Amino acid sequence: MNNFVYHNPTELIFGRGQISHLKEKVEQYGKNILLVYGGGSIKRFGLYDKVMSILNEQSCKVTELPGVEPNPRLSTVKKGIELCRQENVDWILAVGGGSVIDAAKAVAVGVPYEGDVWDFYTRKAVPEKALTLGTILTLAATGSEMNRGSVVTNWETKEKYGAGTTFPAFSILDPENTFSVPRDQTVYGICDIMSHVFEQYFTHTPEIPLQTRFAESIMKTVVENAERVLANPEDYDARANILYCGTMALNGTLPMGVETDWATHSIEHAVSAVYDIPHGGGLAIIFPNWMRYVYRENAERFKRFAVEVWGVDPSGKSDDEIALEGIAATEAFFRRIGAPSRLADYQIGDENLELMAQKAVPFGPIGKFKKLTSEDVAEILRMCL
Amino acid sequence: MNNFVYHNPTELIFGRGQISHLKEKVEQYGKNILLVYGGGSIKRFGLYDKVMSILNEQSCKVTELPGVEPNPRLSTVKKGIELCRQENVDWILAVGGGSVIDAAKAVAVGVPYEGDVWDFYTRKAVPEKALTLGTILTLAATGSEMNRGSVVTNWETKEKYGAGTTFPAFSILDPENTFSVPRDQTVYGICDIMSHVFEQYFTHTPEIPLQTRFAESIMKTVVENAERVLANPEDYDARANILYCGTMALNGTLPMGVETDWATHSIEHAVSAVYDIPHGGGLAIIFPNWMRYVYRENAERFKRFAVEVWGVDPSGKSDDEIALEGIAATEAFFRRIGAPSRLADYQIGDENLELMAQKAVPFGPIGKFKKLTSEDVAEILRMCL
Repeated sequence: MNNFVYHNPTELIFGRGQISHLKEKVEQYGKNILLVYGGGSIKRFGLYDKVMSILNEQSCKVTELPGVEPNPRLSTVKKGIELCRQENVDWILAVGGGSVIDAAKAVAVGVPYEGDVWDFYTRKAVPEKALTLGTILTLAATGSEMNRGSVVTNWETKEKYGAGTTFPAFSILDPENTFSVPRDQTVYGICDIMSHVFEQYFTHTPEIPLQTRFAESIMKTVVENAERVLANPEDYDARANILYCGTMALNGTLPMGVETDWATHSIEHAVSAVYDIPHGGGLAIIFPNWMRYVYRENAERFKRFAVEVWGVDPSGKSDDEIALEGIAATEAFFRRIGAPSRLADYQIGDENLELMAQKAVPFGPIGKFKKLTSEDVAEILRMCL
Repeated sequence: MNNFVYHNPTELIFGRGQISHLKEKVEQYGKNILLVYGGGSIKRFGLYDKVMSILNEQSCKVTELPGVEPNPRLSTVKKGIELCRQENVDWILAVGGGSVIDAAKAVAVGVPYEGDVWDFYTRKAVPEKALTLGTILTLAATGSEMNRGSVVTNWETKEKYGAGTTFPAFSILDPENTFSVPRDQTVYGICDIMSHVFEQYFTHTPEIPLQTRFAESIMKTVVENAERVLANPEDYDARANILYCGTMALNGTLPMGVETDWATHSIEHAVSAVYDIPHGGGLAIIFPNWMRYVYRENAERFKRFAVEVWGVDPSGKSDDEIALEGIAATEAFFRRIGAPSRLADYQIGDENLELMAQKAVPFGPIGKFKKLTSEDVAEILRMCL
């Protein structure tokens, strides 16, 4: 086990009707609020009205930043920063999925910063202050509701980067708010959650038995609830299990003492910076190919993955065979739930392959399980065609 | 899954040499410190000198509260409160195991409280303010380093109660600081950790697949590292795994959305309030008997426990047989690592059995898996003789 420091101050408020806690949060953080949301689904499904009715009852002054994009854009973030400064808001409430929360985090750290908020994403600066942020999550996927990560796309330069920004002070997770998530978004969310675990599971760090089992626990639980939630989108318990897994997959629990990878996320960010495809869809395509490209670095780990997560019977098989069977099972799972499996599914050919490979390694080689250069990335992307 | 609110602000600083973080904590929280510790083992093994050398380098003013007892006493807590007030300390640093930390928590909430600190333990009051508390843990056991629980004994009234007090702001966990823990204390710690998981694992809450797997992950990891650490007390990785399990077993992760039990802890508190036996030893005796007394309430859960944690082969056996085999395996594990298995091992007979049974249910029936009256407790204690 490696040395580590873990600190996660987010208050997680989970379950049916937990939106009622919003009242006490207004009392705690103030009545002058920036409300951040996305394309309007929260209006269609009544959540917007529920939120506004609580805020209005408390006589809040609400400024709105609607229309946050699925890959949230720097221009939108800057609009939010401007609004906060103009209106001198007390705190930010993000209602939506990971993109909305990521954009709100960028706004939260951008407001008290004198420079360009993009500095945090290009690693020119590290956020030191932030406005208070609360979230109401509507999609099981990114884990952004309980971590300090934020991913923003600069559409002018076609760059998509992540940064450490600020933890939400609180996040309200009501599984019922995910009932209306469309099938494809549900699938992408599941791919995203699984991918987060992969990034933290494939490691060379020795002596991490509990971290290993925790990761396997999440993967098994996601797999066993995925088809259930797709069959019945209003299955409260299945939605709750997936939602809870999404948070636990990326709230700092899994990487305690573990060297994590994150190369595949960099590759996906490069792809969706150029093509604006759904993040979860990109990950479902790239991950099995990344696995095939790197598994020999630690076949033992991939063997365990195959046996523990996918129930591969190891008897009479070589390590390589077992590992490859596990990778095939991963790919089959993604396909079974309806995720894309090739870049061609998004009409992406090899036109921009070198460009994407370059964009994936902006600050030098990526990944810890196997260090990848732009040549490696190009090779993996070729396997994805 | 039940609704829940989770919030754990403790910063966990884990690994070799992490005591170096103490310097930044002094800068953050101040130089006027109450140092709380126990019977002097931290002096024998050099930790006291390490801590003092960092504090002296920072020109701290250190007031000491030494001699905290294994079942920390109210009188000691009151001495600590008095010292903090006299010296107007900025914050409290606890160096030791769970008892030392529990006592320090009581001091931390007692200082700003105008009434009697015992009010928090008799449920007459709830703490609203606390002095900042930091800890350096020397024993894998109670999880007190990352929760707000505190157990204190009032020796005059022979009462031992737990209360929710305050989270440590930070806890430094260096597995090397546990190398010198004597064999019996190591064993008690392991019993304590396993018992914490039991209290949160045996439940009727449906649809908690991830929470269930997390609990099983901790139990399996403790079992596989227990004999290893006893065979070689300076095995860094085994010590680290046990230490990490101890924290994760009781930092609020396992009970998210789960109804937990805690009857056995109440019973043990009653026993050690009367006899002052080691908490972990008491738990090792009582838990298997509690299990036998209650398992029929949810034999399915006990069956899963047997198969998943102890590897019991279920084929051709009735649910009862499987469940009982799992309970026998639990008892055998405790015995194998050298824990006591009968009250007689502590020269306890049935003299005070009714008294203890009464003391175990001071606020009415205990437990959620099966509600226990004092008659039930007496029956369980009789099984422990």
